[in-house]
Amino acid sequence: MNDIAVSPRVKPVGAQPNLKGVFAAALTPVNADFTPDIKLHAAHCKWLLANGCDGLGVLGTTGEAASFSVAERIAIVEGLVKEGIPASKLLPGTGCAAFTDSVTLTKAALDVGAKGVLVLPPFYYKNVGDDGLADAYSAIIDRVNDPRLFLYFYHFPAMSAVPISHDLIARLRQRYGHTVAGMKDSSGVVENMVGAAKKNPGFEVFAGADPAFLPLLRDGGVGCITAACNLMPDVLAKIYANRDSAAAEAPHAIALKVREVVAKHGGIPAIRGLVARHTGNQQWLRPRPPLSAPAAANLKQLYADMDATGYKMPAL
Amino acid sequence: MNDIAVSPRVKPVGAQPNLKGVFAAALTPVNADFTPDIKLHAAHCKWLLANGCDGLGVLGTTGEAASFSVAERIAIVEGLVKEGIPASKLLPGTGCAAFTDSVTLTKAALDVGAKGVLVLPPFYYKNVGDDGLADAYSAIIDRVNDPRLFLYFYHFPAMSAVPISHDLIARLRQRYGHTVAGMKDSSGVVENMVGAAKKNPGFEVFAGADPAFLPLLRDGGVGCITAACNLMPDVLAKIYANRDSAAAEAPHAIALKVREVVAKHGGIPAIRGLVARHTGNQQWLRPRPPLSAPAAANLKQLYADMDATGYKMPAL
Repeated sequence: MNDIAVSPRVKPVGAQPNLKGVFAAALTPVNADFTPDIKLHAAHCKWLLANGCDGLGVLGTTGEAASFSVAERIAIVEGLVKEGIPASKLLPGTGCAAFTDSVTLTKAALDVGAKGVLVLPPFYYKNVGDDGLADAYSAIIDRVNDPRLFLYFYHFPAMSAVPISHDLIARLRQRYGHTVAGMKDSSGVVENMVGAAKKNPGFEVFAGADPAFLPLLRDGGVGCITAACNLMPDVLAKIYANRDSAAAEAPHAIALKVREVVAKHGGIPAIRGLVARHTGNQQWLRPRPPLSAPAAANLKQLYADMDATGYKMPAL
Repeated sequence: MNDIAVSPRVKPVGAQPNLKGVFAAALTPVNADFTPDIKLHAAHCKWLLANGCDGLGVLGTTGEAASFSVAERIAIVEGLVKEGIPASKLLPGTGCAAFTDSVTLTKAALDVGAKGVLVLPPFYYKNVGDDGLADAYSAIIDRVNDPRLFLYFYHFPAMSAVPISHDLIARLRQRYGHTVAGMKDSSGVVENMVGAAKKNPGFEVFAGADPAFLPLLRDGGVGCITAACNLMPDVLAKIYANRDSAAAEAPHAIALKVREVVAKHGGIPAIRGLVARHTGNQQWLRPRPPLSAPAAANLKQLYADMDATGYKMPAL
């Protein structure tokens, strides 16, 4: 690693944070001027918690975190708590291209009372290698320098284009203990998730995609943090509750169908479309640039495909 | 495009800004705590201007812009002017993942007196398409809403993983006229650069890599903004001055050799290593995370390879 001026090592409080279960990668609704609509965001988060979510992965990829400034991201996290979302349910995304921004966001999340933070690697430079990523994560941990910190890696190579390797996890886990608490793995590769969990006892691995949720739960993982959870928190909760029995297979099959519809219709825009229909609120269609709203011409087919799964979203 | 609330169209002042010639993608030196060393940065910029640079592409990829917070980036641009760098020489990078950050940085650059800004597309989301990118650039231009704005696209698909297409250029050029003034093209593909210049009369295209500089100048381009310019501003100035004669071939050949050494030794770390040797200041070796310093064991070979080109950097 580089010549980082390392502050005295953080001593984490107690043991692993023991986060587990179903987390939604919650959508962020915005107003016509693209400012976050925090009241609507909180209402959606309350619906998610009332219908089976154990926690809220706010400001992830689905929440368009990267499209908001640091000040906007802090306002969202603080605003959700002010609107009645328990801070202990929040797992906010705090990873940025600039480690100084990640430090600012992580401190703010801890000050609000979040139990953990989900941290993307710096994602502008590609092929920087584990030394550079270790330097970046160390700079964040050393500067936050707070025993309340529990950091979860956010591994999403298809989007960030900067993967988190098992070697990097082991290196930082050895350096910082369970301050480096776990990972959301959106690679889609179950073996990668299972391997990370098994190589690092206690390390809390969440599946970033629905198909991997049940297989991962049965092989060392602790939960999921997914986009389609915005649509089917109850289904994922049933999988989690029945993870050790055959009763998980039926909700798993539903989850696969819903997820297929979402994937067919472009991911985030599909989720926006379906939440808009469910709530009767067209505001949900609007993303921040550079993402685009679902094409109006495709909504009818999206809705027909969702109806064909036989699944109905829980009532408001 | 999306339902962006569009402000009244900016009317650009006069004609094209007519930027041209040799711009350095200047390195950003940092202190041991990774804060920018603005005095050292300004000293380097003065050396670049004294040795042939027409302008300074500060806070680009080589300047590690993405690794600094918005506040740090504003402090760098304002600090350079305070240290005596003419604002009219500055072409700061102001593109961020969040368009709100790009707006803040662009306004700050214009307020300082910069003649243009170099704007990366939002680079977290991949495959967003021209509609989404047009929305993002429009959001920046509409919100900056300043007739002094001249925006240069920063096309660097290998790093940002978000390309700027000719269609996007044409669409925004039609919408905003020469407020959308030009592009730095770091694709390495001369045909792409030439095509962008020819399809949009007056559009100012800069080569983002040294090998493309002379071919582009002879086919519709106006200049270069390159990393290796940190090492050989005089060579690139000779190419520019002799662009219409055979006298450009000799400096072009030197530029190719120096650039090959830089590429062989990893790009930015190689440039850091060579500037450190030239100035006798080891501080130049230190990047911000996630970039790494040049490996000490490789510096000897780097210096030998540079010496083998026969080129000597201009005296301090």
